[in-house]
Amino acid sequence: MQTLISKVVALAGGVGGARLVHGLAQCLAPEELTIIVNIGDDFEHLGMKICPDLDTVCYTLAGLANPLTGWGRADESWTVLEELRALGCPDWFHLGDRDLATHIERTHRLRVGQPLSQVTQDFCKAWKIPFTILPVTDDSVHTWVYTEYGKLPFQEYFVHQQCQPRVTGFEFAGVAGAAPASGVIEALQTADLVLICPSNPWVSVDPILAIPGIRAAISHREGFRQIIAVSPIIGGHTVKGPAAKMYTELGIQPSALAVARHYVPLLTGFVLDTIDAAQANEIGHLGIRPLVTNTLMPTAGERRRLAEEVLQFALKLRMS
Amino acid sequence: MQTLISKVVALAGGVGGARLVHGLAQCLAPEELTIIVNIGDDFEHLGMKICPDLDTVCYTLAGLANPLTGWGRADESWTVLEELRALGCPDWFHLGDRDLATHIERTHRLRVGQPLSQVTQDFCKAWKIPFTILPVTDDSVHTWVYTEYGKLPFQEYFVHQQCQPRVTGFEFAGVAGAAPASGVIEALQTADLVLICPSNPWVSVDPILAIPGIRAAISHREGFRQIIAVSPIIGGHTVKGPAAKMYTELGIQPSALAVARHYVPLLTGFVLDTIDAAQANEIGHLGIRPLVTNTLMPTAGERRRLAEEVLQFALKLRMS
Repeated sequence: MQTLISKVVALAGGVGGARLVHGLAQCLAPEELTIIVNIGDDFEHLGMKICPDLDTVCYTLAGLANPLTGWGRADESWTVLEELRALGCPDWFHLGDRDLATHIERTHRLRVGQPLSQVTQDFCKAWKIPFTILPVTDDSVHTWVYTEYGKLPFQEYFVHQQCQPRVTGFEFAGVAGAAPASGVIEALQTADLVLICPSNPWVSVDPILAIPGIRAAISHREGFRQIIAVSPIIGGHTVKGPAAKMYTELGIQPSALAVARHYVPLLTGFVLDTIDAAQANEIGHLGIRPLVTNTLMPTAGERRRLAEEVLQFALKLRMS
Repeated sequence: MQTLISKVVALAGGVGGARLVHGLAQCLAPEELTIIVNIGDDFEHLGMKICPDLDTVCYTLAGLANPLTGWGRADESWTVLEELRALGCPDWFHLGDRDLATHIERTHRLRVGQPLSQVTQDFCKAWKIPFTILPVTDDSVHTWVYTEYGKLPFQEYFVHQQCQPRVTGFEFAGVAGAAPASGVIEALQTADLVLICPSNPWVSVDPILAIPGIRAAISHREGFRQIIAVSPIIGGHTVKGPAAKMYTELGIQPSALAVARHYVPLLTGFVLDTIDAAQANEIGHLGIRPLVTNTLMPTAGERRRLAEEVLQFALKLRMS
């Protein structure tokens, strides 16, 4: 599309982020889009390094993602997991055969010293993804979820315990010493639009924003750039994941407004669903320009439509 | 079977060893059979520790082996390998999906500090193998094949280059500092019969015999115990693998007699195929009692028949 918004950086977590990024990928040229991905969910399982958000974004852009779940691979089989189970291995984390190849080769490369960003770049090349996908850092940052039962590693909370424990807080262990991966700061500093995807603010976006240097790079050219978030909360609920449940447990009414407040003072614009139109005014009072539209995007066409609207919105904000 | 041979230790490499061990497993009670397996072929591939001989023996005894190849898993699929190939990984070593579960979990356990013998014991339990299977050592020993093109890691020679390079010698790197795994020396010292399976003398059995303490333990109760080898060479050829080719390239006519000479002065008995009956006399002249019989054993029934004959032969030698 013809636009003055020619450098877009998307901050993305898992499924919701991947969907909007998939829309952007249909509107922008390869050099116009950089995706910076959360790695706080990454963990080691059976000795393998698993990066759920990176994989979800990559699989989605490569056309390899399972269309039903949004994560994992399409046309997946489960033979290795069946045999791992026979050996007494834990099977709460679902490792499909196709997906496993990613974990095996990534683990191998990391062990011989390649940074995660380099591995990701090589995988994107192999999967014919023309856009730049960057893990926010090559260092280890581990999200811990504080719950009524003590602190849990993110995947233990998210997958094994299926988000059941009541949440009291979060910790991004290692974040203070983590450095942005090569290319991250440069992409943010030169962006016309930084788009915070409809990912979980607490555990997908906050671990990105908490890396030293990221917030400063986003705010770098204040006034010249748009910083827009898309609400992952629609009508008080999330399409997927525990963001709404987390807001409630932390004593905050889950709403688009709550998400906008979460990102103040970073934002210039905010996209919320038509079902939440009544909150637009109050978001405006935060000094953030609202865009009310349909934010559900199960299909490729709807992702493209939402991405186009967000880009037009950014252009309008810039021109105003 | 009723016999005075009630403690049998089999020294085994890959497919040929696994076949005879499969026959012994049909004749002996769980406490009567210990299998000591070569680990010189073990290697690291895509960051995973792969133990081809241990796996072939275990899969065979568990009834999980591919009946056509003798190695790898029955009912195997290749989805992970297909995806690894898409990521640009080398695919010369055929990693099946079922087989991969073994490598993943073994690698994981070794990395957290479990010795290989413990991992093997746990896997045998999971696979319901009632016999004791021991890697000859928990230390690393790497077989190098010296060839016309320089020295090659064993699997590079064996699988990647398909045994094409002309062999000039062998090295078992690390062997001088390797200690027998827990249970190996005890099993050998108390055995009534030490059976050298029809495995490759150069690269399957020699790396076992080269571990410090193994030869001494085998010879420990000289006169009380039988030490019998079964020839892997039949009519100047091998059923599988490069043993005959290696003999030729090292300037030795490949024959049952050459194998018997290889193991002098360890042996009290030697089993050779009927096709090689003419060599029995000369083997006798080495001070080794020969048994001539049909040594081909593609089926479970033939493996049992050969195992029974070998056990009867050991009993006869003992009584004589």
